[in-house]
Amino acid sequence: MPSGAMAVNPNILEMEYAVRGPIPQRAAELAAGGMQVISCHIGNPQALGQSPIYYYRQILSLIEDPSRIGRERALKSLLKRLPQAESGLSKEGEFSSEAALEMGETILSRLGTGVGAYTESKGPAFIREAVARYIDERDGVTDSDGKRSDPENIFLTNGASEGARFVIETMLADPKDGIMVPIPQYPLYSATIRRCGGVQVGYFPDEDAGWTLNRSILEEALSSARDGGVKVKAIVVINPCNPTGAVLDDDDVKDVCTFAREHGLAIIADEVYQDNVYGASFVSFAKAVGRDELPLFSLHSTSKGFHGECGHRGGYLEVRNPPRLEVGSGNFVDILLKLASVNLCSNTMGQVLTYLMVSPPKSDSDLHARYIREKEGVLRALHEKAVMIRESFEKMRGLFCFGRIGAMYLFPRLGKLPEGTTDFDYCMRLLETTGLCTVNGAGFGQKTGTWHLRIAFLPPKEVLSNVLSKWIDFHNGYVPGE
Amino acid sequence: MPSGAMAVNPNILEMEYAVRGPIPQRAAELAAGGMQVISCHIGNPQALGQSPIYYYRQILSLIEDPSRIGRERALKSLLKRLPQAESGLSKEGEFSSEAALEMGETILSRLGTGVGAYTESKGPAFIREAVARYIDERDGVTDSDGKRSDPENIFLTNGASEGARFVIETMLADPKDGIMVPIPQYPLYSATIRRCGGVQVGYFPDEDAGWTLNRSILEEALSSARDGGVKVKAIVVINPCNPTGAVLDDDDVKDVCTFAREHGLAIIADEVYQDNVYGASFVSFAKAVGRDELPLFSLHSTSKGFHGECGHRGGYLEVRNPPRLEVGSGNFVDILLKLASVNLCSNTMGQVLTYLMVSPPKSDSDLHARYIREKEGVLRALHEKAVMIRESFEKMRGLFCFGRIGAMYLFPRLGKLPEGTTDFDYCMRLLETTGLCTVNGAGFGQKTGTWHLRIAFLPPKEVLSNVLSKWIDFHNGYVPGE
Repeated sequence: MPSGAMAVNPNILEMEYAVRGPIPQRAAELAAGGMQVISCHIGNPQALGQSPIYYYRQILSLIEDPSRIGRERALKSLLKRLPQAESGLSKEGEFSSEAALEMGETILSRLGTGVGAYTESKGPAFIREAVARYIDERDGVTDSDGKRSDPENIFLTNGASEGARFVIETMLADPKDGIMVPIPQYPLYSATIRRCGGVQVGYFPDEDAGWTLNRSILEEALSSARDGGVKVKAIVVINPCNPTGAVLDDDDVKDVCTFAREHGLAIIADEVYQDNVYGASFVSFAKAVGRDELPLFSLHSTSKGFHGECGHRGGYLEVRNPPRLEVGSGNFVDILLKLASVNLCSNTMGQVLTYLMVSPPKSDSDLHARYIREKEGVLRALHEKAVMIRESFEKMRGLFCFGRIGAMYLFPRLGKLPEGTTDFDYCMRLLETTGLCTVNGAGFGQKTGTWHLRIAFLPPKEVLSNVLSKWIDFHNGYVPGE
Repeated sequence: MPSGAMAVNPNILEMEYAVRGPIPQRAAELAAGGMQVISCHIGNPQALGQSPIYYYRQILSLIEDPSRIGRERALKSLLKRLPQAESGLSKEGEFSSEAALEMGETILSRLGTGVGAYTESKGPAFIREAVARYIDERDGVTDSDGKRSDPENIFLTNGASEGARFVIETMLADPKDGIMVPIPQYPLYSATIRRCGGVQVGYFPDEDAGWTLNRSILEEALSSARDGGVKVKAIVVINPCNPTGAVLDDDDVKDVCTFAREHGLAIIADEVYQDNVYGASFVSFAKAVGRDELPLFSLHSTSKGFHGECGHRGGYLEVRNPPRLEVGSGNFVDILLKLASVNLCSNTMGQVLTYLMVSPPKSDSDLHARYIREKEGVLRALHEKAVMIRESFEKMRGLFCFGRIGAMYLFPRLGKLPEGTTDFDYCMRLLETTGLCTVNGAGFGQKTGTWHLRIAFLPPKEVLSNVLSKWIDFHNGYVPGE
């Protein structure tokens, strides 16, 4: 006797994820119909023409087919003995550099069994050790002035999203458990909290003061949640911020630490845009926490920065000062390990890419100059494109965008919209009129009565320049006059 | 005011996953201490020396560094013009075959933006289309006698585990919702059901009849769960079975379909060992369901078979006849898409490997002969190693192992153990005495009062032969005499 229609998990039913929601779905339809769509709804640099870093791909290619290492050496020696014209190849330099061959050999020897075997569930120890060294060097930590990163508390993950889910899923023990998230926020957090059946507690950085934080903003959000019976367990901070681009300074980071410490919260620090600061300084939470006992979960990824390797799904989670658990619950890191174990391990190519991200070519390596040139080129171009877009904003009536540039996004406030319409309508019409695909502010959360959109500053300049002039015309025709 | 110790998610706290539990952890300690450990606790072929399939790695290597395609062509033409001795390279054949270069170009052209960009959350359409063609060809489906696989209902996933989790997490709407799983089972299922807060409903294939199924076994498990107030939503079938190695025949598969249809259950078919049948026939659930409206979720992976690419985390989930949902809940496939979207996409190298798995070299390709030789070589060696182990079982007092060989595992019943000891004690002592790492039956579930272990038949023959003689001695010394 067949039963009737199936009921599905209400948390998943109610979960929303705008970055892949109706606007990008409409964009896909328009593209299928022949329209030139410019995909600025997602931070996906290589889809918009950004070239991979040569160092990364050289080595990943060798690792997939280790027999190439010997062949490349034989070839380079052959080509040295041949007149260039005869070889039919333009130059020896097209082959893997000696530094790449050596790095490939090192990685293969440390992996032991190549990239086709499952690794430890946390990832291979040598990669976790390299991540720990990277964190300490980035933060200038020495034994005398801080706490070293512990490779046993590092997990290699499929992108940063997986690490965030592990932590949130473990922490949410009860439907009244809550996690503070900035509004606006990257919807991974709202979606994951909803998926795990917890309460999202929004806090609202001050847009008019450049999306800055202060204690009263945090305290207000926390007390109001506690008054409602919510047990707040952690605060998520996204720095540099997706979607606003705000970059926290030293004082902001310390403020969050003080707040979390006083209220017994853990910090979940999403730092995947740490290289996207364009001249400003990135202050890590790991550095600010120092020798303190404040629980900290930091996330990083190979997808952003100048790396842009979204498809490889590399990333890591560092746990620092794991929260003390109730008696009999064991250790937080062991619980995370159990979650990681059910997935067996993260993908090995993403693991190796994470190793390369934290192990750039040494300054005496024949790959160093090209790596630096590519890195600086990508970051400079991103900054220039952000500035181009900001300049167009000046020509759009009523639109406001705060001053600093960070991450890969601008998040302007739209001002007055036609009666009865929202930022969703604006973004949909913008897409249909100009081919520019953005995400409306509601997808990230925003203060009631304000309207925004997020644009990723990734397309090639000539594409951007062309669509920006169309956008200005669209905007000034669409929004009401003063 | 800091709060006290943190409470964590009780479902995760209670979740167990023996494949990465205390026995393999002890093995890691012993290996660190210098003991030669033989890792038969997990199906990880390349960790035990199985070579990757050349076709896969050639192309993956080219895809990571597309500039190699042009260089390889120039080189091959150069080497043709040089006397072999002068080149210093043994032969032209060491370079990528023309078929590999062409396949690399095809994949890059279909991807459009290389492997560094996020893809559609389900995976690129051309790969999903290739998976659908593979399924139809495997099952001999034509328009007249069955239902074609729909690429829109296929999700590329990080291994098969991710697909299983998506389905189970979506289905479990209530703490009284349950899913039937075979006992013994691969503990991904028990762990995921526990993690999602649902009820595991075990059914017990008949070990003495070669782990076969029959209707009364299924009916009994279902009625007993329903009597306990559990709403059973689906039945998991693992075929070929991990851990028992049992392979279902046509009648078994049809029986499960009839049972599921009559009781309104969905089927979750874990078919990751479909190539590991060693002369028997694999019958897919997709073929058995045919034009029926029975909801089916089928899983496959690049990790097993003769592929053995565990580290690349490639796989797919095919949904056939998605369950009808309650009014207002939309469509099951759309809900799965939302879950996939929060992860952005599965790793692209795993996606490409899945494409290669379902697109073997054509018979006129210069890669075909080598591919067939490697495929048959791996499968033949696996079978021979299973037979070697079974022959040793004959010499172990009281041990029983059913007749057929499937998947990558043998799952013998241990018979009488020393008073007060369990299969856990046996496996731990076996490890400490001989270096052989297995997983005890309790890790997979077993009938009360029976003891088993699972051994993966993967180590090289000489290693296996050496450890098997030690195992026989250990066993006959450890278990009580008649």
